[in-house]
Amino acid sequence: MSAALLEALRAAVGPAQVLTPDAQDLSAYEEDWRKRERGHALAVVRPANTDEVAAVVRACAQAGASLVPQGGNTGLVVGSTPDASGTQVVLSLQRMNRVLALDAANLSVAVQAGCVLQQVQAAAREAGFLFPLSLAAEGSCTIGGNLATNAGGTQVLRYGNARDLCLGLEVVTAQGEVWQALSGLRKDNTGYDLRDLFIGSEGTLGVITAATLKLYPQPKSQVTAWASVADVHAAIGLLGLAQRQLGAGLTGFELMNRFALQLVAKHYPQLRIPLIDALAPYFVLMELSSSQDSAAAQAQLEDVLGEAMEADTVADCVVAQSVSQSREMWHVRESIPLAQADEGLNIKHDISVATSRIAEFCARTDALLAQRIPGVRLVNFGHLGDGNLHYNVQVPEGGDGAAFLREHEKTVNTLVYDSVAEHGGSISAEHGIGSLKAMSLPQYKSPVALQLMRAIKLALDPAGTLNPGRVLGPATPGH
Amino acid sequence: MSAALLEALRAAVGPAQVLTPDAQDLSAYEEDWRKRERGHALAVVRPANTDEVAAVVRACAQAGASLVPQGGNTGLVVGSTPDASGTQVVLSLQRMNRVLALDAANLSVAVQAGCVLQQVQAAAREAGFLFPLSLAAEGSCTIGGNLATNAGGTQVLRYGNARDLCLGLEVVTAQGEVWQALSGLRKDNTGYDLRDLFIGSEGTLGVITAATLKLYPQPKSQVTAWASVADVHAAIGLLGLAQRQLGAGLTGFELMNRFALQLVAKHYPQLRIPLIDALAPYFVLMELSSSQDSAAAQAQLEDVLGEAMEADTVADCVVAQSVSQSREMWHVRESIPLAQADEGLNIKHDISVATSRIAEFCARTDALLAQRIPGVRLVNFGHLGDGNLHYNVQVPEGGDGAAFLREHEKTVNTLVYDSVAEHGGSISAEHGIGSLKAMSLPQYKSPVALQLMRAIKLALDPAGTLNPGRVLGPATPGH
Repeated sequence: MSAALLEALRAAVGPAQVLTPDAQDLSAYEEDWRKRERGHALAVVRPANTDEVAAVVRACAQAGASLVPQGGNTGLVVGSTPDASGTQVVLSLQRMNRVLALDAANLSVAVQAGCVLQQVQAAAREAGFLFPLSLAAEGSCTIGGNLATNAGGTQVLRYGNARDLCLGLEVVTAQGEVWQALSGLRKDNTGYDLRDLFIGSEGTLGVITAATLKLYPQPKSQVTAWASVADVHAAIGLLGLAQRQLGAGLTGFELMNRFALQLVAKHYPQLRIPLIDALAPYFVLMELSSSQDSAAAQAQLEDVLGEAMEADTVADCVVAQSVSQSREMWHVRESIPLAQADEGLNIKHDISVATSRIAEFCARTDALLAQRIPGVRLVNFGHLGDGNLHYNVQVPEGGDGAAFLREHEKTVNTLVYDSVAEHGGSISAEHGIGSLKAMSLPQYKSPVALQLMRAIKLALDPAGTLNPGRVLGPATPGH
Repeated sequence: MSAALLEALRAAVGPAQVLTPDAQDLSAYEEDWRKRERGHALAVVRPANTDEVAAVVRACAQAGASLVPQGGNTGLVVGSTPDASGTQVVLSLQRMNRVLALDAANLSVAVQAGCVLQQVQAAAREAGFLFPLSLAAEGSCTIGGNLATNAGGTQVLRYGNARDLCLGLEVVTAQGEVWQALSGLRKDNTGYDLRDLFIGSEGTLGVITAATLKLYPQPKSQVTAWASVADVHAAIGLLGLAQRQLGAGLTGFELMNRFALQLVAKHYPQLRIPLIDALAPYFVLMELSSSQDSAAAQAQLEDVLGEAMEADTVADCVVAQSVSQSREMWHVRESIPLAQADEGLNIKHDISVATSRIAEFCARTDALLAQRIPGVRLVNFGHLGDGNLHYNVQVPEGGDGAAFLREHEKTVNTLVYDSVAEHGGSISAEHGIGSLKAMSLPQYKSPVALQLMRAIKLALDPAGTLNPGRVLGPATPGH
């Protein structure tokens, strides 16, 4: 069976592009980015174009095998690596990495799914435009993966998630047919929204092979500021003020707690962290993008912060005086996940609640955690403007990290997710479900929604060819 | 059979809210807004809340009957009125018209589906916010209908379609179950995007009963300008310049051809139409929304237009000097559809192509039409910034309109739609498919897309309870 499938795969993409574990080290494809799980693939196939992707899907469907689409393999929820069975085919899109066409007058660019995000950003920049999707893994994640997981990042406040940046897709269905809708229309009400159904479905409904993306004019100037605040409530007050005063100019609004920055200070002592000596518990990084020059933008941002200081919303603040100072501020913010990793093991969450309830969520959950785990070390940071926090627990300093995880990980997850649910929130704001959260989903998602999702999966991929087990968990009999 | 169903409906919503043709005049529910078709309902039911909607759906499903959800019944494609059989139930959402909760800190408002759009706009405004969806029927269309059809309008360029303004839905499924997701999250990657699947599905997959919508800060100022241009190509040039210079400040960009404005002048002689004596073939209305005062906004808009005049992109222009002058300009633009109706019968299209190809589309299609129908009177206007034009043919002056339609409507539709298809466009940019375009869809939509859509319809509504025949046309055996 598997010999026949391998033969069909070789016929589909050429023998050189079918990698097998007996001949090659496949660990880069088999292990997830966080090194949470290592699977085993029957083969890794690397198609060169959409027709080859379709042929691979048909070969797997005919053989009754399943496949796992993979881009940069930088996902955080174990969604793009094979299971342990050794029977799954990893479909790597990495060779399909061409920018197909940039249409300046339509403010759009069509790209193949395997383009690395940074490559798309660069193509836009070279033509004088902005492609605003921006996230930590941008140097290695692919746009296909960004769309399959509806990636978020630091510019969502103004530009939306990956979903909001996509005008159209090309998708290979579970039957190996090609749906092509790349013509870059901004309005098209001719039927169901297939585009958004595929976006965020984590490769379980179809394989995204290309996309037409929105471009934006480059802002004339960008100015960043850093503020210390007394609590999350004050940060939310600053957010509201900034939204009222700056409108669409407010392109970033990140929250960081003191401990997150202390980890950065410890592991990256060369970085200058603004206001860190002021002993405030929370800090905000905010960014204004403007169609005016940087002096005007700076003045506008100073006005907002002046008003916030007068109202005691902000304790202290610094407005970057140059592009390099702005970059330094962002660099501090972006170093938090790395500092966390340097510090040791941790329990990550990627939650969202309505911004009106997020201060209450933090206060309540902080208290519950402190009660359950005395001295808990909480790294709390993220995209406050979107109601999205990475609310992480760092294992105790010098302790046995693995033992801490064994003892506490499940308890911590349950405590945090229950609190999220009480506040009407989501247990996965931007990372997706993958395998890692598939077992938690039924507890926190409405049964009606799950039923609708299962019906859709069954309708579009009745044989379970595409990334089975992801999002919805293992198929149950009758489904 | 129908007696038992009527009994069940009366039990579900109370006898007073089941209107039947023997007792009441149902024409307001049975005839579409453009008076293209008049159907016959078994009954019109007017539930008071979501549970009653669910009970109505269950009653219809049990009886093997089908139902047609209806909001303000202002749709343009015959999607919300019953067919001629006298067996369908019209489910009117109009009594469910409460604003449920406005959350200032989350910039969101939850409303029932039967809220009239103007009521939602007013609720936002009273709280100091903007709900930007804006279209001709806003005084009578409902937000449920806006979402079911993914309505567009004049502010899409900046704020997107109805889809982009929705954070969450409450939906009654074809099985009469309730899916509730109103908590106003800006990020939620826990599974398939059910929200966007229901939005734009025209009541064929579920009944939208409530929604949580995005609010925006009110801009500090809005300034409007009016420009005459030599052709569509020049208008596109002005669009690109304005997008580069104004960024997110550019909130409106409408195109109007000379004949459209001549109709306004003829039927509304009291309106002052800027630059109409200048003999230009096309005119643009553009709007800048700013977080600065109106003097600064006016100066910014004047800069753009100055640059455009120097480059000969714009022939002549006027910048509104007051809010009332801005309103007058918008009033002229909004009077075009009414002037068209006053002038007599016409053939309407609602097309979109990529903005980079729209000038070419217009030139080519204008020529083909002129060749086919010498002296054709073309009303061409719409949301150029979105690549969306209402490209309409007015019957000849003083001629027999009905005879003209009989002779030419099909030919004109085919000619225009074929040209749209050649330019990679959509035959329905913002109006939807309904019954009116359901028979054209298979010619212009990809077979793979249609197959996916049919599979989804069958998965979520296997019995065909919800608005059958709309979007996908009559069910075929095996589907």
